[in-house]
Amino acid sequence: MTAVPEVDVPSQAPAAVPTPTPGDPRLARLALNQATVNRWSVPEVIDGCARAGLPAVGLWRDPVVQTGLSKTVRLLRSAGLRVSSHCRGGFLTAPDQPAALDDNRRAIDEAAELGAACLVMVVGGLPQGSRDLVEARERVAAGVAELAPYAAQRGVRLALEPLHPMFCADRAVLSTLGQALDLAEGFSAETVGVVVDTYHVWWDPTVLDQIDRAGARIASFQACDWILPLPADTLLGRGMVGDGYADVAGLRRAVDTTGYTGDIEVEIFNAEIWSADPEEVIATVARRHVQHVVDPTPPDPSSTRGK
Amino acid sequence: MTAVPEVDVPSQAPAAVPTPTPGDPRLARLALNQATVNRWSVPEVIDGCARAGLPAVGLWRDPVVQTGLSKTVRLLRSAGLRVSSHCRGGFLTAPDQPAALDDNRRAIDEAAELGAACLVMVVGGLPQGSRDLVEARERVAAGVAELAPYAAQRGVRLALEPLHPMFCADRAVLSTLGQALDLAEGFSAETVGVVVDTYHVWWDPTVLDQIDRAGARIASFQACDWILPLPADTLLGRGMVGDGYADVAGLRRAVDTTGYTGDIEVEIFNAEIWSADPEEVIATVARRHVQHVVDPTPPDPSSTRGK
Repeated sequence: MTAVPEVDVPSQAPAAVPTPTPGDPRLARLALNQATVNRWSVPEVIDGCARAGLPAVGLWRDPVVQTGLSKTVRLLRSAGLRVSSHCRGGFLTAPDQPAALDDNRRAIDEAAELGAACLVMVVGGLPQGSRDLVEARERVAAGVAELAPYAAQRGVRLALEPLHPMFCADRAVLSTLGQALDLAEGFSAETVGVVVDTYHVWWDPTVLDQIDRAGARIASFQACDWILPLPADTLLGRGMVGDGYADVAGLRRAVDTTGYTGDIEVEIFNAEIWSADPEEVIATVARRHVQHVVDPTPPDPSSTRGK
Repeated sequence: MTAVPEVDVPSQAPAAVPTPTPGDPRLARLALNQATVNRWSVPEVIDGCARAGLPAVGLWRDPVVQTGLSKTVRLLRSAGLRVSSHCRGGFLTAPDQPAALDDNRRAIDEAAELGAACLVMVVGGLPQGSRDLVEARERVAAGVAELAPYAAQRGVRLALEPLHPMFCADRAVLSTLGQALDLAEGFSAETVGVVVDTYHVWWDPTVLDQIDRAGARIASFQACDWILPLPADTLLGRGMVGDGYADVAGLRRAVDTTGYTGDIEVEIFNAEIWSADPEEVIATVARRHVQHVVDPTPPDPSSTRGK
């Protein structure tokens, strides 16, 4: 067994809490999105999550295809892991709309096969050369309307993800939770939900009201911190929970208050984290989860510890 | 007289329209914020605007102090220029609140002396070590409440500027126009207005509704484009109007529909623009204004051009 040094990555600060071990109830909802440890293949991330005592994993389409869909399903079952999300569909503002829809139907098929809690939808930015956000947003709504019946038929929940407004031009014209809900509310909550990703929504002055409004539409809760400075590639500017400015615990409480009992998925794109040992990344994720995300477990009255 | 080459900066693309000359009615509301040509001193920017036929200029506190407040006022009068904005007050979340308020009162005094249309307020980010946006926003509201009576007494209009959510942690916990209006509406519209800066608000799915709601509270309209990629220093990531993704003309029309007849101030922080010849910058600003911001002037029936 590898001894994992109790040092957080990427901060290299000494761990503030011991790494929780498999079976710890505070890990019961912790999921790791595989993009956080992108050096690992699907078999490696499934194995790593299982060994660390994480009950769920978020997967990405390309690595799943590389491993093979049915092999991935077998590995998940044998490890007893849930799929907290499948990433991702969307890009509905692409010039070739029929091709985009076909690709999304394939993603829905994969999510169904994996039994994923949802298919995350990153809806796409402004079409090439356009400044017309209204039209781009209409195109997204039309795409979701096309896909929803197929998703319902396959038993897959589409999870519309508002991205930070910094990504409005090039990745997602859905920029706020309120806007995502305006769109989602045209469909049944079972078929079209929303993602609450702390990195994307933490700044929003209406976010707590919108989480309350979202209620049963919350299909995925993702945890990630806002850190500064932003790197040259802003896609990779995400921070380990606890290293930055976002009130992740407050957002988690608000989401739970709506009755959300799903997974809390850690998804971090960060070059420093990618270059670290994935075992250390996963240990830091688990420590930060108990330190910064879940509420302290009430003391066990049968235990004499702390008396 | 210097011949200004008809090449846009910083794109180096050939100019799409001739540079409008002094007296052109399409320049009647064009203001240049001096930070766009930050190599120029206050006397140089006043002179440059006057020569280019721009009727107004946005000034910054430090260079005005360097030139001297009364000298600046004399130069403005002799050039016949309006001051579209004075930049800036704010930073109300600073640890030393009394010092921050004192500094804002000095900024109000300067704005009064300059006869500025408004004092732009960049309200400040999260206090050091805090993740409590609610508390930070309350601190801003308390600061504005402290300053509003003094501003009213000096006849200065405070203009609350929502900044792009990318700057929420470190520069402004006011992130949307709606949020700025929620705060401003506690005061008279003459004393507390808002800034609509296209760079900061273009992505907002509610921006057109909020501009409509803002109505007479619009104290300043600033034009600047959203370009990609963002540079390492995101403060300097702003683009020349027409080079990016923001629908500046659409936002200008929305602002004008509310009855706003004030200046359209171009404020761009961009290292490439700063290193260009300020004369070329100002010429590009004027060309892009007629090309991308104002509506085409109806043809003059007494003219034979274009027949």
